[in-house]
Amino acid sequence: MSTYKFAIPEIIFGRGSLDFVGVCSRRLGASKIFVVSDPGVEEAGWVDKVFAILRQEGLDFVYFNDVVANPRDYQVERGAALYRETGADVVLALGGGSPMDAAKGIALVVSNGGRIQDYAGANQVKNPLPPMVFIPSTMGSESNISQFTVITDMERHIKMTIISRTLVPNISITDPLLLGTLTRELIIAPLFDSLAHAVESYVSPIANPFTEVQSLKGLDLLIRHIRPALETLDMDDLEQLAIAGTSSGMAFTNASVGLGHALAHALGGMFDVVHGISHALLLPSVMRYNLPACTKKMATIGRIITGQEHTTEEATALAGIEALERLRDDIGIPTRLREILPDKTLLPKVSQNAEKDICLLTNPRTATWKDILNIYYGAW
Amino acid sequence: MSTYKFAIPEIIFGRGSLDFVGVCSRRLGASKIFVVSDPGVEEAGWVDKVFAILRQEGLDFVYFNDVVANPRDYQVERGAALYRETGADVVLALGGGSPMDAAKGIALVVSNGGRIQDYAGANQVKNPLPPMVFIPSTMGSESNISQFTVITDMERHIKMTIISRTLVPNISITDPLLLGTLTRELIIAPLFDSLAHAVESYVSPIANPFTEVQSLKGLDLLIRHIRPALETLDMDDLEQLAIAGTSSGMAFTNASVGLGHALAHALGGMFDVVHGISHALLLPSVMRYNLPACTKKMATIGRIITGQEHTTEEATALAGIEALERLRDDIGIPTRLREILPDKTLLPKVSQNAEKDICLLTNPRTATWKDILNIYYGAW
Repeated sequence: MSTYKFAIPEIIFGRGSLDFVGVCSRRLGASKIFVVSDPGVEEAGWVDKVFAILRQEGLDFVYFNDVVANPRDYQVERGAALYRETGADVVLALGGGSPMDAAKGIALVVSNGGRIQDYAGANQVKNPLPPMVFIPSTMGSESNISQFTVITDMERHIKMTIISRTLVPNISITDPLLLGTLTRELIIAPLFDSLAHAVESYVSPIANPFTEVQSLKGLDLLIRHIRPALETLDMDDLEQLAIAGTSSGMAFTNASVGLGHALAHALGGMFDVVHGISHALLLPSVMRYNLPACTKKMATIGRIITGQEHTTEEATALAGIEALERLRDDIGIPTRLREILPDKTLLPKVSQNAEKDICLLTNPRTATWKDILNIYYGAW
Repeated sequence: MSTYKFAIPEIIFGRGSLDFVGVCSRRLGASKIFVVSDPGVEEAGWVDKVFAILRQEGLDFVYFNDVVANPRDYQVERGAALYRETGADVVLALGGGSPMDAAKGIALVVSNGGRIQDYAGANQVKNPLPPMVFIPSTMGSESNISQFTVITDMERHIKMTIISRTLVPNISITDPLLLGTLTRELIIAPLFDSLAHAVESYVSPIANPFTEVQSLKGLDLLIRHIRPALETLDMDDLEQLAIAGTSSGMAFTNASVGLGHALAHALGGMFDVVHGISHALLLPSVMRYNLPACTKKMATIGRIITGQEHTTEEATALAGIEALERLRDDIGIPTRLREILPDKTLLPKVSQNAEKDICLLTNPRTATWKDILNIYYGAW
C-alpha cells in the first residue's frame, strides 16, 4: 500500500496581504501574540508595520528578535522562556528562514517541554503547538509552508532537522511587496534553496502526483524569472518568484528533500555557511550524482530548464544541469567550496555529519560517507 | 490589491488508506463519531468496513443514513437532531456528494444553530464546526476537499449553495479502492461534475496561479483516463481519476465555479436531476457561451483536451469543446434536456433560479435570465 499525504497551511498570497495579519491572528484566538523577527527585517520597516497593524486591531504582543542565520538552540530556549513569562498564545513569525525556523522551535518547546534536541528527526512531536501565522520576507526556506524546522546544535556543531506535521503553520501570508525591500544580494542565495526544494522534492522517492505538479511549477517559474528579477528587481518578476517559492514549499514539505540538503545542513552546522550558498555550490553535483537513479525525472527537469529535448534522457538531463551551472555562474554567487571555507581538513568530519542527516533517507540514490566526501571534494 | 487564497484539507490518498479513518478521527479528538453515509455505500460494504475499523480503534459512533441524491433541508435537520441527542463530537462522511454535503449541513447546524437556510450564500458561517473526516466513494463532488455544500430547499425547490472556509473538512481520505465497487453507470455522471469543476475553476475570474495548476492537472488526467477507465474499470485508471477529482477540488474550492453550476443547481432543485448529468448536458454549451470572455484560457483547455493547436485561439478552443461533446456522446449519457425533462414549460422559472445562483458571480461572462434560458433551450 502506498499512501500519499499532502498537507499545507491556509495560504494567503498577494501584494498588500500583510494587512491581514491582525485579522488572521485574531481568527486563531490570539490575545497576546509572540512576534519573532530579526534586525534585518526591522531595518526594512516591516516589523514596525506589523506592530502598527496589530495595534490597530487592538491586539497585544511581545517581541523577540534574538535570531541569527542558522538559528541556534540557545536562541530557541531564550525565546521559549520569554514566551512562557509573557503568557503569549499565538506565534507570529516575520522574516526569512531563520526567524521562521526559530519561531517554530520556540512554539515546539513551549508546548511540548524539554529541549529542542529532544525532537530532532521525524515525527517526535506529541502535543499540538500554539497557533502560528507566518509571513516570509523572502522565498527560499518555505518554512511558512513546511513541516520542517532546522536548528543548530551549538555543542555538536550540527544542524538538527525536525519534521512534524505539527510544525505546519496554520496560516501563511506571503506579501511579495516584502521582497521589494531586499537587495539583489539578499535574494540570490535563497533562490538556490528554492531551486533545491523544487529539484530534490521532484526526485524524492516519496514524491506523489500532488507534490510533483508543485515541484515542476516551482522550477518552471524560478527558471523563467530568476534572471529578469535579478536584473531589474521588478515586482512582477519578484511576485512570480514568491509564487515559485510557495509551490516548491508545497512540494518539499510533503515529498521531503535529499542529499543536497544533507550536504548543506552539514556545512551549515560546522561552518555557519549560508544555506542557499551551499545549494548554489552543490546542487549541480548532487544532480549529477543522482542522475543514474532517476534519469527520466532528471530529463523532465532538464526539459523545463532548457526548453529542449535531446536524443537521450540522460543528455536532456545533463543539458539541464549545465544550464543551471551557467545560471549560477552568470548571476554571481560562490561556485567553489574553496571560496568560502578555510581548508579541506574538516570535510571528512562534515561528511560524517551529512551521512547522518535525515534528509538522506529521501534521496533517490544511496550515498555513503565516501560518496559524500567525493562530492565535497569535487566542489572544492 | 489582489489577494489569492488557497485552503485545502489535509489530504491522505492511496489504495487502502481507508484504514487510517480511526487514527485520523482520534487525532481530531473523537470520542463519539457521527457517521453519515447512504444505502448505496452500505450495499458496497464500505460502511461495515468503516464500522469495523472504528470498533478496532475502540471508538464509539452513531450512524445516520437518511440521505438521498440532492440532499434535502429536512434531512439535515433530522441529522442535526440525532447528532445533538447522541452527544457526538466528530463528523465522518463516507460516500458521494450527497452524504458528504448532508454531513456538512449537519455539522453546520449543530455548531451554529438555526436552520440550514440561514447560511445560504458565501461567508455566512460564524462559529467553527465540529472536526470533519471525509471519505469520498467517488470523484465528482469533491466535497471532501471543498468549502462548498449544496442542500435542496424543498419548499422553494432550489438548491442552496453554502460557501464557507469552515466547511473545508479537516482531513480528506481518498481510497481509490472504493471506486472499484461502483458500476460504470455510477461513475459516468460524477466524471462530468469533475470536468465542470476543472473547466469552470480555470476560467473563473478569481482563479490564481495556485488554482490554475490544479485545474489543468485535473482536466489533463480526466481527459486521458476517462475512456480507458470506463472501458475496463481498471484500478490504475480509476486511481488517476481519483487524483483528477482531488486536483479539480483543490482548484474549485478556491477559485469557485460559474454558469454551468448555476444552471445545474437550478435544474437539480426543480427536477431532482442528477448533478453530473446536468453538466454532461450543459458544459459544452456553457463553454461556447463563455468563449468570447476567456478565449486564451479556453484555448489552453482545448490544447489539453485535443493535444492540438489550431491557427487561432478560438479554433483551438472550439476543437476542445467538440472533442468534449464527442467524449460525452461516445460514453453514453443523456445529451439533450428533452431526454430527462417532461416538457419545456418550467424552463423560464428554472432560468430565474439559475440567475440568482451565487456561482454566477464567478463566471467570466455575465449571463442574464434570457441568456440562461437560451442555453437551456439550446440544450433541449
